[in-house]
Amino acid sequence: MPHNARASLIAVDWGTTSARAYRLDGQGNVLDSRNAPLGVSQVAGGRFAEALSSLLGDWDGEKVPRIASGMIGSRQGWVEAPYLDCPAPLNALAEAIARTPGDRLHVVPGLRTRDGNGTPDVMRGEETQVVGAVGRTRTPLVVVLPGTHSKWVCVEDGRIVDFVTYMTGELWHVLLQHSILGRLAVATPPAATTTPAFERGMARGQGTGSFMHDIFGARTHVLMGELAGEEVGEWLSGLLIAREIRNARQWAQRRGYDGARVRLVGDDALVARYVTALSAADVSVERADSRAAAFGLWQIAVEAGLVHPISDRT
Amino acid sequence: MPHNARASLIAVDWGTTSARAYRLDGQGNVLDSRNAPLGVSQVAGGRFAEALSSLLGDWDGEKVPRIASGMIGSRQGWVEAPYLDCPAPLNALAEAIARTPGDRLHVVPGLRTRDGNGTPDVMRGEETQVVGAVGRTRTPLVVVLPGTHSKWVCVEDGRIVDFVTYMTGELWHVLLQHSILGRLAVATPPAATTTPAFERGMARGQGTGSFMHDIFGARTHVLMGELAGEEVGEWLSGLLIAREIRNARQWAQRRGYDGARVRLVGDDALVARYVTALSAADVSVERADSRAAAFGLWQIAVEAGLVHPISDRT
Repeated sequence: MPHNARASLIAVDWGTTSARAYRLDGQGNVLDSRNAPLGVSQVAGGRFAEALSSLLGDWDGEKVPRIASGMIGSRQGWVEAPYLDCPAPLNALAEAIARTPGDRLHVVPGLRTRDGNGTPDVMRGEETQVVGAVGRTRTPLVVVLPGTHSKWVCVEDGRIVDFVTYMTGELWHVLLQHSILGRLAVATPPAATTTPAFERGMARGQGTGSFMHDIFGARTHVLMGELAGEEVGEWLSGLLIAREIRNARQWAQRRGYDGARVRLVGDDALVARYVTALSAADVSVERADSRAAAFGLWQIAVEAGLVHPISDRT
Repeated sequence: MPHNARASLIAVDWGTTSARAYRLDGQGNVLDSRNAPLGVSQVAGGRFAEALSSLLGDWDGEKVPRIASGMIGSRQGWVEAPYLDCPAPLNALAEAIARTPGDRLHVVPGLRTRDGNGTPDVMRGEETQVVGAVGRTRTPLVVVLPGTHSKWVCVEDGRIVDFVTYMTGELWHVLLQHSILGRLAVATPPAATTTPAFERGMARGQGTGSFMHDIFGARTHVLMGELAGEEVGEWLSGLLIAREIRNARQWAQRRGYDGARVRLVGDDALVARYVTALSAADVSVERADSRAAAFGLWQIAVEAGLVHPISDRT
């Protein structure tokens, strides 16, 4: 497809630290993408219009609708798109789109649910990735989005039924950077493949032990000469990911979903770790296209009548 | 008792950040105590002899034996006193005392155990507090030492049978100081008494939820206007302490101990929180004297023959 093919929609996955823009053609195919470190926390003084122009560059002149998801719709973003409650069908997301002054950007709302104890849970941006990752699947499906705040999402018949957050990535970071567990650790670049230390951490994470006790093994194994300083990060990563998977499968099963089969969305390095850990827990994995946000924004834009597909994508 | 009563032993509880010295009379009574920010991590270049003189001040001239417990016996301390394995009787602690050059200081070893998965656990200093807190009790007893790394310890017939560590205090600190949970928190001075937010956090901690999910409530409750920024620290404190208690009771019960009755050792503010949380979990609490380290060092010194009690303390 030529680089200058005509765009029908510009879609932006606009998060806390970075933003990625996609040009989509009239059938929802991605023509091109661009990203910049212009996340909501990086834009000073509410200068979001300037940030968008900077992100889009020479696409900025194209007279096509623009739609975004993620933290850009939070109270700290350009325009607040209040959380919708679960279960949330696709048309509810489309109907609740917020608009910036002058309709420069359409903004998809985030979702809210309550867990079994009535405690709120929230997402912004992941709901759109889920829409893109699920596509036309109508059967019950569990979608997993690993990350700083990993999400497990139950979807059925075009509706996001419920979801749950685990602070997996952030716990890994703060424990390694700021706790005594990191003091004996030696920094190593993230490995392309998982290691024996990751597997050992996974074995601990798969158990039924107390999280607040189990992580202390990252210190005691090193003290006893049973784990090298270079292996602490991998060991903790294995423990945290395996524990997330264990807890989340039980969560999905309590909701009547089959936690033994999931669809995974995310960047390659993290997804590889999750594939290893999910396989070790006998969970079968389908990988969604990593451009799920773009496909989700397209579907929501179509549902909202912002674009009219030229012909069916199938 | 006059300030200048004759001392028989100088006992030092020498930790990572601070050190506390006690003068004990010939019956093991505490005559006086002093503390200084001269913990192992604060003493540069191995100048522990100078640090000890500085801590003792005018006591330094008293020609009596000196004994210490805590991180001073670690690899980073003055002299390494290798870990003893559990179960460890009092006389094993006494026999394994390490000595600094010139016998300036006798140093009590730490203890080591392995949990159900074979992962090591360690303590240094708490073993001595446990000896002091248990005294002459021979019946099975669970001793709780809240803190940065809380310890639950099973004791019977003068032996430390087993123990477990929970990273409660450190998790509270790193989550509040370094994670997104602290970003919505407003710092408040530690409350003398527990608050409604502490009680709400406790209710969450008492549940069977996933730790990695449950803590995220510290953010979502604030986002939804259900918790004030000033309450985040208290809410998290309640969650972490209640979860520790829940997990540790199960741990004790698996070892055949009655987790419904514990003896608590620690400083007043933290002990008050644990009394609240233990009572809410229907655990009855006896408080040990906060000078348990001094009493433990006395008993170990007697067992080692370093001092000979003038008469029976009873």
